[in-house]
Amino acid sequence: MAENGVSPNVMFAEEKTGWTGYVEWEKYPEKKLLAQNILASHKFSPIPEFQFVPLPDTNPVLIGHRWKEYHEALGLKSIVDFSWKTVLKEKPDLIHLLDFPYNGETRRDQLLTEKLTPNKYHFIRNHGGVPDIDKDVYELEITGLVNRPIKISLKDLQDINKFPQEEVTVTIQCSGTRRIEQIREYPGDGDELINAPWGEGAIGTAVYRGVSLKKVLKIACGGVKPECKHLEFFGADTYFKKGQVYNYAVSVPWRKVRQSDEVILAWKMNGVDLPKIHGYPLRVVVTGYIGARSCKWLTRVNARSDESDGPVQSKEYLYYSQQIGKQNARYSNGFSIQQMPVSSAIISPVDKQVIIHDGFITLRGWSYSVNSGHVWYAVPQENMTEKHYHAWRLWTIDLPVEPEGWLEFCVRTWDSSNNTEPTFVRSAWNWDLHVTSSCHRIKIYSVNRSRPATAQRLKEIEDRGEEFAPLSKPLEWSLEGEEERFRISQRFPREPEN
Amino acid sequence: MAENGVSPNVMFAEEKTGWTGYVEWEKYPEKKLLAQNILASHKFSPIPEFQFVPLPDTNPVLIGHRWKEYHEALGLKSIVDFSWKTVLKEKPDLIHLLDFPYNGETRRDQLLTEKLTPNKYHFIRNHGGVPDIDKDVYELEITGLVNRPIKISLKDLQDINKFPQEEVTVTIQCSGTRRIEQIREYPGDGDELINAPWGEGAIGTAVYRGVSLKKVLKIACGGVKPECKHLEFFGADTYFKKGQVYNYAVSVPWRKVRQSDEVILAWKMNGVDLPKIHGYPLRVVVTGYIGARSCKWLTRVNARSDESDGPVQSKEYLYYSQQIGKQNARYSNGFSIQQMPVSSAIISPVDKQVIIHDGFITLRGWSYSVNSGHVWYAVPQENMTEKHYHAWRLWTIDLPVEPEGWLEFCVRTWDSSNNTEPTFVRSAWNWDLHVTSSCHRIKIYSVNRSRPATAQRLKEIEDRGEEFAPLSKPLEWSLEGEEERFRISQRFPREPEN
Repeated sequence: MAENGVSPNVMFAEEKTGWTGYVEWEKYPEKKLLAQNILASHKFSPIPEFQFVPLPDTNPVLIGHRWKEYHEALGLKSIVDFSWKTVLKEKPDLIHLLDFPYNGETRRDQLLTEKLTPNKYHFIRNHGGVPDIDKDVYELEITGLVNRPIKISLKDLQDINKFPQEEVTVTIQCSGTRRIEQIREYPGDGDELINAPWGEGAIGTAVYRGVSLKKVLKIACGGVKPECKHLEFFGADTYFKKGQVYNYAVSVPWRKVRQSDEVILAWKMNGVDLPKIHGYPLRVVVTGYIGARSCKWLTRVNARSDESDGPVQSKEYLYYSQQIGKQNARYSNGFSIQQMPVSSAIISPVDKQVIIHDGFITLRGWSYSVNSGHVWYAVPQENMTEKHYHAWRLWTIDLPVEPEGWLEFCVRTWDSSNNTEPTFVRSAWNWDLHVTSSCHRIKIYSVNRSRPATAQRLKEIEDRGEEFAPLSKPLEWSLEGEEERFRISQRFPREPEN
Repeated sequence: MAENGVSPNVMFAEEKTGWTGYVEWEKYPEKKLLAQNILASHKFSPIPEFQFVPLPDTNPVLIGHRWKEYHEALGLKSIVDFSWKTVLKEKPDLIHLLDFPYNGETRRDQLLTEKLTPNKYHFIRNHGGVPDIDKDVYELEITGLVNRPIKISLKDLQDINKFPQEEVTVTIQCSGTRRIEQIREYPGDGDELINAPWGEGAIGTAVYRGVSLKKVLKIACGGVKPECKHLEFFGADTYFKKGQVYNYAVSVPWRKVRQSDEVILAWKMNGVDLPKIHGYPLRVVVTGYIGARSCKWLTRVNARSDESDGPVQSKEYLYYSQQIGKQNARYSNGFSIQQMPVSSAIISPVDKQVIIHDGFITLRGWSYSVNSGHVWYAVPQENMTEKHYHAWRLWTIDLPVEPEGWLEFCVRTWDSSNNTEPTFVRSAWNWDLHVTSSCHRIKIYSVNRSRPATAQRLKEIEDRGEEFAPLSKPLEWSLEGEEERFRISQRFPREPEN
């Protein structure tokens, strides 16, 4: 065991000094087997049901009992504790959808502050605990189908004389963004790692600074071998799937990396060092792909001829066609989700809001498409944030609204190829509840103060020192004088004369 | 006070001996004013919010604190207590949507037992407490625009030598039936008397026995005067509206009564005396009209030239067009709801049910239209219960269902004039949330065992001693062997060669 760096008083020790919370699994099949046996000897908590019942009205919303128990069973409880401490320090204001592994969503008002999401408010979707890595001892390993496998320090990667640096504005989103819309109408797969019931806030935009992965492979490794078709990324976090233990691992096609310098190894986010919870000291940022591919706490890049066989790549983030579900889902009949389709959301107002207005209602939200060239129906160009190739645009529009009562608003976006969004949630339901890219819809209750009858009622409410809201609370006074009511009912009787 | 029968030790005494729980208000303006002053001096509980938040998972679902407090403030707590005792005795199995005034819905399985709903399971929508009336002292008063005002005992009404008797099979429903569909999508008006969040069970069918009201008016009163256009019914129950006290009062057009012998004064329901909670000893049954017009515990029939100005008739059960709501609703811009439109519901399966089948799914439900002549699309005639002019038909159909995953079923009914139902809840939303007659829709998750892949998965689940349900609970074992997954991913790679 000493050769694996395992000290006698812990079951599974950290791999390297200065890399707290990082246990290397992939290089040690015997450790994986031992962990598998330990897990098999435990009973774990059931996975909570939250799809067919209302979501708890708590924060954190859901508790990751089982994922914590997995870590505890392997003597890794300190990872759980450090992760939550980091949440409280770095992300105190998020909606904590799941406490461990941490999944937190940006609050709506903070989502629309500006084009770049402040780091403190940027959403988080982690798959394991947060490791605590000393950047001075950090090194990245590059293995597999490269001409020259290497280990390289962060200092060297940051040396401007060795590698040119890149800055790129990137919207990252979870493929589960807006999942709650699918859950509400058509529940789907649960998961031992709870798939968070995301709203519209599992998306955020930042400027990342780092080096082009393509250039690192070329300059430091002498390029990749001809058989290389995929680049696999390993994170320092520990992952579980159906009784086995892994390091977090995903892959992207080499073609994606080769095509541009926009797949980067990043150490800065909006001008400061990556927060620990975002992958400090080094993460991958894959533009245009689901957040899961932008591996945090990167330990290794592995060039290979096929996709990663890690469970996150090969058994999760799969998109199933509509007649596939619990009764027939396999891994090989799902389609791996990599790029995200065009999508959008209305962030303000919110669903079922009552709005008192004077004939115009302001809508605000985000729109996202890969590869730019957006056209937004009816939103004036000057009401959108700046264009980028890989970032959202925030928008605002004042809609003329004359009618009263319940109205429905829906937003859709086109990209430069005229791809647009499916119309209803139904059109894009899939068993694992990913990629909710159908038109986002809200209902609002319109109260148009520019109508005299409405203005009069609002004044009466105000004169009595009362509030219009909540909508469903009845007014406690008579809506009409008895004489007036009688006069009108006589003038326009319900029943005709004959 | 003695002349009103008020004993010195109670605030508002019962009107007549043997009529426990009946306080007459309408004849005594000074009593009404006194009660109004007492109510004005009290603070009452707020009305619970249940439209914008999930319904409590309790039985009773909602508690009528305020309505109880109104009764208590006037010294009528014994009415509240007797009502609940009667519920527990006569309706123990209903879903108690509101404890007081009692509103109870038939459970789904009991709704489909047979064409006639057993009395024990028939829904109840009361507007006040249940009085306890001795049938031997019972008398009905007939006043207003009749040629000869009378008082008549139950014994005389039941005398077959005086009046021919009628039996009629009638489906009675609350105009709030299926209100929950409107609440879920578009909340609306609350009410001091809580408007119950009815599902599809606020409907029931019974054979009522009694005398034709038309014949009683003719034989006992010498007919109505030419100015008579409406018949007003008073109940023994006490009612409240915005700080004032009333007896329950409603009206129907004289034309409706004159046209047929199907508006009856009934004392029997499915062959037995009316249960107390259904209006014992005598109630009105108005075929084809909302249940509210079929006045229970009838004290008086009053012939008049206009509609009742009681609040139940003039200020409630109003249907508003879609742009009318809290901001502009008056009483005179609503349309009084009398007849019910064509409607239907799927009772089995229920929404979001997972169904494992072999290519056919059985649907069951009810369909309702006034004046008969139904045509049900695709439901075979032999799969429907017998036709009546004023009753529902229960139906069942085996639908061939090949596809799997989430499917939506919707039911619609036509009447003999080809009236049919609006397609979506949206099409018929109205501020007071009445008359939810849009096509009833359910989603079910289909698992077709006649498909080999599905049969194999179901067998594997069974072999492991596990259950398919709940749908969202993940399977804890691998969905596919690793070799098989790899083989297929190599054969059909996600990324093309070029």
